[in-house]
Amino acid sequence: MEKYLYNQTIFFNNCPKIIGNFSVVGPKEGQGNFGEFFDMVLENDRFGEETFEKAERKMIEKAFLGAIDKAKLKKHDISIFLAGDLLNQIISSSYAARSFDTPYAGVFGACSTMAESLAIGAAFVDGGYFKNVACATGSHFSTAERQFRFPLELGNQRPPTSQWTCTASACSILSLSGRGPCITSATFGKVTDYGVRDVNNFGGIMAPAAANTLLAAFYDTKTTPEDFDLIITGDLGKLGSEILLDLMERRGVKLGQNYCDCGQMMFSLSQQPLMGGSGCGCCASFLNSVLVNQMKKGVFKKVLFVATGALLSTTSSQQGDTLPAIAHAVVIENNFKK
Amino acid sequence: MEKYLYNQTIFFNNCPKIIGNFSVVGPKEGQGNFGEFFDMVLENDRFGEETFEKAERKMIEKAFLGAIDKAKLKKHDISIFLAGDLLNQIISSSYAARSFDTPYAGVFGACSTMAESLAIGAAFVDGGYFKNVACATGSHFSTAERQFRFPLELGNQRPPTSQWTCTASACSILSLSGRGPCITSATFGKVTDYGVRDVNNFGGIMAPAAANTLLAAFYDTKTTPEDFDLIITGDLGKLGSEILLDLMERRGVKLGQNYCDCGQMMFSLSQQPLMGGSGCGCCASFLNSVLVNQMKKGVFKKVLFVATGALLSTTSSQQGDTLPAIAHAVVIENNFKK
Repeated sequence: MEKYLYNQTIFFNNCPKIIGNFSVVGPKEGQGNFGEFFDMVLENDRFGEETFEKAERKMIEKAFLGAIDKAKLKKHDISIFLAGDLLNQIISSSYAARSFDTPYAGVFGACSTMAESLAIGAAFVDGGYFKNVACATGSHFSTAERQFRFPLELGNQRPPTSQWTCTASACSILSLSGRGPCITSATFGKVTDYGVRDVNNFGGIMAPAAANTLLAAFYDTKTTPEDFDLIITGDLGKLGSEILLDLMERRGVKLGQNYCDCGQMMFSLSQQPLMGGSGCGCCASFLNSVLVNQMKKGVFKKVLFVATGALLSTTSSQQGDTLPAIAHAVVIENNFKK
Repeated sequence: MEKYLYNQTIFFNNCPKIIGNFSVVGPKEGQGNFGEFFDMVLENDRFGEETFEKAERKMIEKAFLGAIDKAKLKKHDISIFLAGDLLNQIISSSYAARSFDTPYAGVFGACSTMAESLAIGAAFVDGGYFKNVACATGSHFSTAERQFRFPLELGNQRPPTSQWTCTASACSILSLSGRGPCITSATFGKVTDYGVRDVNNFGGIMAPAAANTLLAAFYDTKTTPEDFDLIITGDLGKLGSEILLDLMERRGVKLGQNYCDCGQMMFSLSQQPLMGGSGCGCCASFLNSVLVNQMKKGVFKKVLFVATGALLSTTSSQQGDTLPAIAHAVVIENNFKK
């Protein structure tokens, strides 16, 4: 294997830490498997706003402010806000940023956005460019559904391979000072496209991207799956996770009992989730609730977090394009020594 | 003034250089004021593709490959591709990235994207995280017009304050090795919103963002307008530039003869450009043709490049939102010593 086939990973030697984390989710997510772990569960997914789009924006604002609070910082302590979302021109993030008076840089990786913002944010903090960086994302079932698929009023039937866009937002505050799990490396993904055209099969679209990034992360960081307490993808869903296991096995890498997928776990079976949850907020809210909190308790010591995104728009699909995907990964370690 | 009002700037001490630059523009831009400076002028803005959207994507691919060539590198020498554009879910950049086999991170700042990608890219290179970073963006009149405004077939009349989205794409390759002008600092903007609702007045929407970022850049880098050979905004157009001059004068800062705007200069008067050019590709193509080439010749020694973007979508406008904007700035210096 030629070396430049991978070489997708950057390393952080100064221990950029997640010193604040906050998650806010909708009612359905609150009734799911992780309900008790989220910082805030909405009673109504309108969140007191006129439209679902304005509710999504307000959730990102809430996640940002909540994470700052938990990091015991003030708004003006935040050097930059890195965020993105699924809505056209990432308006949820940009309009949220409008209310902060904090420098802002928009990022986009569809549902891989949480990992992308953490990767860029960790470089900013580790390199000494910024002191405290807020990384956030969010999604909303009702805004995604009516932007990408059908009017909500249509009550359209969902094919069996489909996933449910989570109504969820979350934010991490990264800093060199303070306490929390460290981000020790980040692997940036390449765009993959296996020729899938079915917009109701995100697992199938994104699994190859997850496989590519996992292989790169293992190669670049000189690790094997056994080196991690937990390898977590978000959000391939049930079918996508199975495809990923297959793809990895064909490449000679066996993901074991330490592998799971946020989307697959998000909802309980009684909620009839089909393949599971999806959307930027799904793995972001898992990371910023269950994962970081359990790492702080020492339950997990070294975690590989891989967020996957499908890079389509309705325009590209209407023009007959196949559906590309990407995955970005970060290694998070429970290292309180530094 | 309290210190945290600004503090938006990061500094690069290792001289990340623009070692490759390439611009490709449409026929109208080729007939404009800078036609002779662009690396490639299309004869037809379809660029041999079935749709304008596919042409936009192909232009970004061309800019990427052209810039690599000019940097005397190969595709696999590029560590990461940072790009964004105006189309929903930045499909032009993502689909372009699909053809490269290079790690990719999508960014979004509307027409400020060139400065945003340079700012993040310079941090990656300066901090030693990545060796060679490609920063790119692009826009296309026909894709933007039909996505944001009206069907092209309608031949809609344009109000006098409107700007013309440039059909243009450009890419810069950043590296610590090689020769070219250095990026010495980057100022990330805050989102501003002065309550404008007129989507045909981008100058009015974006001028306050440019003013905010200029003030921050001067304050943070301890400079005044006189310290620069050239202060260039992109793309406020004629009206926006005049508003910027007013806003700055009210804050006690006089921008002099060394100030100009890419959008205002892009087209000749005989092309009836109204307020001038706009779109991600406008200032990006200026930067990667006229500006970098003239800096290499020593015509300009220290330049403040400020790219501005309006952060709206059709959804936000249809829901009655006012129009926010952002501006990011980079200082580029002709420093061949390092």
